[in-house]
Amino acid sequence: MTEKQKHDVLEANDNFYHAVKSGDIGQMDNVWIKDASVKCVHPGWPMLYGWEAVRQSWENIFSNGGSLDIELPDISAQISGDMAWVICIEKISYKVGDEIQFVFAQSTNIFKFDGSSWLLALHHASPIPAPRREVISNEILQ
Amino acid sequence: MTEKQKHDVLEANDNFYHAVKSGDIGQMDNVWIKDASVKCVHPGWPMLYGWEAVRQSWENIFSNGGSLDIELPDISAQISGDMAWVICIEKISYKVGDEIQFVFAQSTNIFKFDGSSWLLALHHASPIPAPRREVISNEILQ
Repeated sequence: MTEKQKHDVLEANDNFYHAVKSGDIGQMDNVWIKDASVKCVHPGWPMLYGWEAVRQSWENIFSNGGSLDIELPDISAQISGDMAWVICIEKISYKVGDEIQFVFAQSTNIFKFDGSSWLLALHHASPIPAPRREVISNEILQ
Repeated sequence: MTEKQKHDVLEANDNFYHAVKSGDIGQMDNVWIKDASVKCVHPGWPMLYGWEAVRQSWENIFSNGGSLDIELPDISAQISGDMAWVICIEKISYKVGDEIQFVFAQSTNIFKFDGSSWLLALHHASPIPAPRREVISNEILQ
């Protein structure tokens, strides 16, 4: 993989998480392949098949307030031909009353190059236990 | 994707689940890329990086008795160039005393063609709620 390819794939991955954080379905429209082949697993859910179901799920999440913020403390990318897969840990923070709480998810994101852009073909996120307490404490203290 | 390619990818996926069911680490050796690039998420776990960690995790699972059986009631494959990804629901059955119990997981498996074989590059399994009760009952009655 070239540095340019790696940059472009990581940028496509960033654009996806910006769309999640923004709660803007228009941004979400821009990052996915929009056909029946796409697939999406939200943490703890079975897979959703096809753009119609995937888009509806994001609309539902956004209309319920969505998440406050997502950080990606660990991320890596691999590319082969016109396919790429990005592995990342998502640190999702959200408000409960006046408190900010965290959950962690492990994600696999598969992208396909359409000739000009890397578009999301699959997002699979699954809940994972929080890292060691001292790591979380350090992050809160920063 | 050609029918031959699809057949070969689904066969590689089958070989992986045969290895899981067999509890035979030698079979597991045959289905994976064996380098630092491979990644594996067992249900509810953070990702393991590299063949050494992935192989050790399977050895641990096998030495703890592993699962009794895995069925794949829902499976689909996509191929692009030398990459393929298979999406499946795993119905994992195991013995608790004299009873057989089920759990379900949603899996994404990424394969890479090395010129002669499709080898596993990433396995990401996450726990999902069981399907509707009547579906489970039907399966038990079969």
